[in-house]
Amino acid sequence: MPQTRLDTARIRAARRVIDPVFLDTPLYRCEALEPRLGCAVSIKLETANPVRSFKGRGTEVVASLLAGSGSRAVVCASAGNLGQALAWSGRRRGLDVTVVASRFAPAVKLDRIRALDARLELVDGDHESARERAAAIARHDGIRLLEDSLDIETCEGAATIGLELVDAAPSFDAVLIALGGGALATGVGHVLKELAPDVEVICVQPLGAPAMTHSWHRRRVVTTDSADTIADGVAGRFPIPAVLDDLLLTADDAVLVQETSITAAMRILLDHAGLVVEPSAALGIAAILEDRDRFAGRHVLTIVCGGNVDMDAYHRWVGTSPVHGP
Amino acid sequence: MPQTRLDTARIRAARRVIDPVFLDTPLYRCEALEPRLGCAVSIKLETANPVRSFKGRGTEVVASLLAGSGSRAVVCASAGNLGQALAWSGRRRGLDVTVVASRFAPAVKLDRIRALDARLELVDGDHESARERAAAIARHDGIRLLEDSLDIETCEGAATIGLELVDAAPSFDAVLIALGGGALATGVGHVLKELAPDVEVICVQPLGAPAMTHSWHRRRVVTTDSADTIADGVAGRFPIPAVLDDLLLTADDAVLVQETSITAAMRILLDHAGLVVEPSAALGIAAILEDRDRFAGRHVLTIVCGGNVDMDAYHRWVGTSPVHGP
Repeated sequence: MPQTRLDTARIRAARRVIDPVFLDTPLYRCEALEPRLGCAVSIKLETANPVRSFKGRGTEVVASLLAGSGSRAVVCASAGNLGQALAWSGRRRGLDVTVVASRFAPAVKLDRIRALDARLELVDGDHESARERAAAIARHDGIRLLEDSLDIETCEGAATIGLELVDAAPSFDAVLIALGGGALATGVGHVLKELAPDVEVICVQPLGAPAMTHSWHRRRVVTTDSADTIADGVAGRFPIPAVLDDLLLTADDAVLVQETSITAAMRILLDHAGLVVEPSAALGIAAILEDRDRFAGRHVLTIVCGGNVDMDAYHRWVGTSPVHGP
Repeated sequence: MPQTRLDTARIRAARRVIDPVFLDTPLYRCEALEPRLGCAVSIKLETANPVRSFKGRGTEVVASLLAGSGSRAVVCASAGNLGQALAWSGRRRGLDVTVVASRFAPAVKLDRIRALDARLELVDGDHESARERAAAIARHDGIRLLEDSLDIETCEGAATIGLELVDAAPSFDAVLIALGGGALATGVGHVLKELAPDVEVICVQPLGAPAMTHSWHRRRVVTTDSADTIADGVAGRFPIPAVLDDLLLTADDAVLVQETSITAAMRILLDHAGLVVEPSAALGIAAILEDRDRFAGRHVLTIVCGGNVDMDAYHRWVGTSPVHGP
């Protein structure tokens, strides 16, 4: 049993405070993908909910705790999905939510955060600048700072996906997980290592934002000076030491994929699974495309973790030309 | 309580023989759609499963009964989705499945039927020709003919969607349901009329395939000489009298929509909900687009009933140009 910061009993308890709209998401074999990938493929789909990503699982846990303790406000930095989810969870509990994001985040994500009544503050830099600014707001206002992947509730929320994978009596023998800050990978990985230890846990990160993967391989925090990837949801540069420690206990491997593989994976998911996904959610399929021999004949599950994507960019990436319609 | 051919206790029993992969599908409010539609919109998503339509619910009931009674074979006519679902349900129970379809059915549906190990026979005419041929095969071979919408199992399977809508403690006050043969509309309509009678049940059919809608309005079977719509899943011409009788008891209204509204609805679902849907699954949104005043300020739920669509046609319909990729 991995001695991570996570605890399976707490993860089960987390499920009980999460709005059911985020739970028990579709898990299904997608045979139409398989001739293209050379292995059996199952999908865990986290996009069919009000915020179109898995992040609502974690923000439900946080917002529930805050509302229960009488807190009135919370701030987070977000690449877009966490902020949208926190805005959703906070709105229904009467919390004042502030989200700090890079002004280079996808417009669709920023628009949705505003539409969910959160206060949105944009910074000129990247996600790491947003993290600094969010921390400053929390200090100044004396309110809770929600830090993705560091704060255990975000990992516990993500880990509820792992419970659902295990409850499905998994026939898959490898799980491909998008790796960004690490909440998804450590959360799901913890549950799998404890309850389905034979399943290989493989994290996937873009070659253009490799900090956590490099850190995992070197077993110490490695930062990068820049991040250059279309997978905005996982484009961090400063791995969190405590999360890396957990990742070292829960991941069997961490691999990097090229941008062209990410867009090819997005196109395959559109053409053969009918799924519109954001780049981060295509990382698992991209990993199969880059190493078919490794997965040949195996049964692989990938978590399709988000579907918030600017459609103009999406069409450009997958190779379709949008005509502006209604 | 409507005196249809359906029975709610039997529908609850049907749930117990349906593979869970088809049950408890996502049901969520989709606020990003709402500025475009002028009303609150919830989605019941039936595309995230191994056959990408709701039809698996019904074929699971049928195949379970057949396997339990020692039958070895079954034949159906299909516009594509029923055949795919029957092939899936039959394969896992060792049944020989024959599907008769029009050779004008979408290639993607025909390919999937073959990939699921069913015997596929194509006829030159439309869906009504396929129905005749399937009946002839059943007589000749002495095997079970599965008739969509006429056979009560197909309605009961579809009706399990209704149970899930009611269990969600509906805040919606109207449900928009694609109308083809009538299994989905009578099944879901029966449950709503019995358990949530205040919810308005509105069926939606393409103007180019209006037979059942005309029949509902005139309270007698009206056939048409042809069907001309991109919504291949609902393009029947010969309504079944018993199904019409049920529809008269379960539907509050039946409306027709234009092809341009269907494609506009498909584009809106892509751009603002990230959903790739087949034309039949966009009928509900099309109905809102055609009668905004009727739905203004209300909370409307629509069942996104299928996502099997030829991608070249899809891009043409929604106004994007595909570039052939991987």
